[in-house]
Amino acid sequence: MQGLDAIETPALLLEEIKLEANLARLREVLSAWPQVELRPHMKSAKSLAVARRVLPAGGPITVSTLAEAEYFADHGFDDILYAVGLAPSKIDRAASLAARVSRLGVILDSREAAAALAAAAPGFEGRLRVLIEIDSDGHRSGLRPDDPHLLEVGEVLAEAGLLGGVLTHAGESYGSRNFDDLKRFARLERDQAVLAADRLRAGGLECKTVSIGSTPTALFAQDLAGVTEMRAGVYMFQDLVMAGAGVCRPEDIALSVLCEVIGHQADRGWVVVDAGWMALSRDRGTQRQAVDQGYGLICDMQGRLIDDLVVINANQEHGVIARRDGGPLQSSDFPVGARLRILPNHACATAAQHKAYALVRDGRVVDHWERFAGW
Amino acid sequence: MQGLDAIETPALLLEEIKLEANLARLREVLSAWPQVELRPHMKSAKSLAVARRVLPAGGPITVSTLAEAEYFADHGFDDILYAVGLAPSKIDRAASLAARVSRLGVILDSREAAAALAAAAPGFEGRLRVLIEIDSDGHRSGLRPDDPHLLEVGEVLAEAGLLGGVLTHAGESYGSRNFDDLKRFARLERDQAVLAADRLRAGGLECKTVSIGSTPTALFAQDLAGVTEMRAGVYMFQDLVMAGAGVCRPEDIALSVLCEVIGHQADRGWVVVDAGWMALSRDRGTQRQAVDQGYGLICDMQGRLIDDLVVINANQEHGVIARRDGGPLQSSDFPVGARLRILPNHACATAAQHKAYALVRDGRVVDHWERFAGW
Repeated sequence: MQGLDAIETPALLLEEIKLEANLARLREVLSAWPQVELRPHMKSAKSLAVARRVLPAGGPITVSTLAEAEYFADHGFDDILYAVGLAPSKIDRAASLAARVSRLGVILDSREAAAALAAAAPGFEGRLRVLIEIDSDGHRSGLRPDDPHLLEVGEVLAEAGLLGGVLTHAGESYGSRNFDDLKRFARLERDQAVLAADRLRAGGLECKTVSIGSTPTALFAQDLAGVTEMRAGVYMFQDLVMAGAGVCRPEDIALSVLCEVIGHQADRGWVVVDAGWMALSRDRGTQRQAVDQGYGLICDMQGRLIDDLVVINANQEHGVIARRDGGPLQSSDFPVGARLRILPNHACATAAQHKAYALVRDGRVVDHWERFAGW
Repeated sequence: MQGLDAIETPALLLEEIKLEANLARLREVLSAWPQVELRPHMKSAKSLAVARRVLPAGGPITVSTLAEAEYFADHGFDDILYAVGLAPSKIDRAASLAARVSRLGVILDSREAAAALAAAAPGFEGRLRVLIEIDSDGHRSGLRPDDPHLLEVGEVLAEAGLLGGVLTHAGESYGSRNFDDLKRFARLERDQAVLAADRLRAGGLECKTVSIGSTPTALFAQDLAGVTEMRAGVYMFQDLVMAGAGVCRPEDIALSVLCEVIGHQADRGWVVVDAGWMALSRDRGTQRQAVDQGYGLICDMQGRLIDDLVVINANQEHGVIARRDGGPLQSSDFPVGARLRILPNHACATAAQHKAYALVRDGRVVDHWERFAGW
């Protein structure tokens, strides 16, 4: 156990009590829908210790890279969904991974990718299931539920014994500004996924899995009829983008970056700290929200928000803290050597800049939880 | 040796011939100023192999974290400048490091920090020198050359036998838009550093080192009289921010991220690839330049720019490539499985997302150079 004044800065802090509360919140939402299985997305946490908190008894997970899948497979997770369109060059590696787990899921959204995978199907020895990616909101990838190619892709996969169902991610829900937006995106995501599944079924194909998920839509879903699994990742930590979208409060954010004051520019009202973009990430996800939080909000060592302070700029190893209104700061309130905590814009991006979480309980570091990185 | 079609994507490629040309360019500039010693900043490369290319016979280096300093000290570099204001809590760790090298340099810009370090001076056994950070352009940290505290800080350090000189970094030069801007920032940086040194000397203090450096000002310096050392880092790789500032051409950029096409949204003219912000970083450094390059420009496998294509959006593991003018793209020109290379906005940030460089010579990967990370 170490005090927060004793560890090296910058450091990534994870508040255990907030992590547990965030996990409980989604479990509570899902408890109303027993047919919906939680398949948490480990792309945010990338940590075995966090995964074990999310799923104490084990269970299915979602990952964002094959290396991440391999890492979790090495540690006993044996039902893994790799939720990024499978590049053809990764098929062999996926087959090697499939040999080590009970079930591997992959996704795709084109006839080309389906044909390439169907040709390689024997190498997976029945342990692969493919979900067709559905575009529910114009965000990124996927086929629209009414795309004329949907059935064709489904047939190619079904013929090869690979068709598992459909998957969508309501990426546009991150742009929500209020509860109405959140509920609307949640409904859209569910409806579009179910519509795509129904189209496949109407075409005579089996569609067992209807997988949806994003943190905003998972937490604000009013109706999950027809859905079979829920993926979400950042809900474990929450962040300022989620707070700006109305998904959580700033005080729910479990991650922060501990830093130390290294100087001032008194005439400009700046406090300079030793956490720059290398520790915070370059993510400026709040830039387009109603309130731009710069590179993050400031808390004291106890995690209490200091009103009106914001990280206004970040260089590689320097962060510049100032009042949001540009007014003067009392340097003596933040002397050289004082420590502060910065709440991140985007938990996934900030966490990715660090090798481990310093787990904080009652204001002390009680454990170091390694993170995984790479492809 | 591997072809670029055989390695896993996403991957960070480093073109050896461009690296060497970039290194030669700065050496050529500095050859006119024999009193100026090159002290390359390793914050961009964070790689022993790159450092050895920059300094084949060894030599002084600059670093951005103490962990980086320790890493290079472990590998034989024994004259290291840590160029971020020293946090008081890092003094003991710096003293341990100083015991393992010939000379350790640190910087600071306040009486508080100078007093804390002076009190700890005996622990450094004469191997520490302190440079006073000078603010030459209002960018970030440092004392203005005419700051009334400059002499006071100098005296505290001199009395403790620690005063080495002055240092500045023309961070605002990154905002240059033409050669005139670049030359003006270079002159400002040199003049302000020399002015601060002269003020210390006029106050009866020795000021041996006058350290300046940023890639734009290093490459466009017209006059280095009175300067004793030059720090620069990103010049080794160059990037789109540097190209946008007129410092280099896009074809000089030695780093790129290799990716693979995983899908399309034909009606929107999008090509989706497996390099998102995790591989590219969230850096949007060209956003405020005359030409916004999104999350990067696109090259073919041979490294030739494909006109008018840009990464318009990035999610964690997805990049979206489109025509800059929003016009249609022929999907068949970029089939699923095709590979492309993305030039980075900011080399330091993009490289930081990877564990190693794949060194490319004549279109093939000839080596893997590890990167260092962390604090």
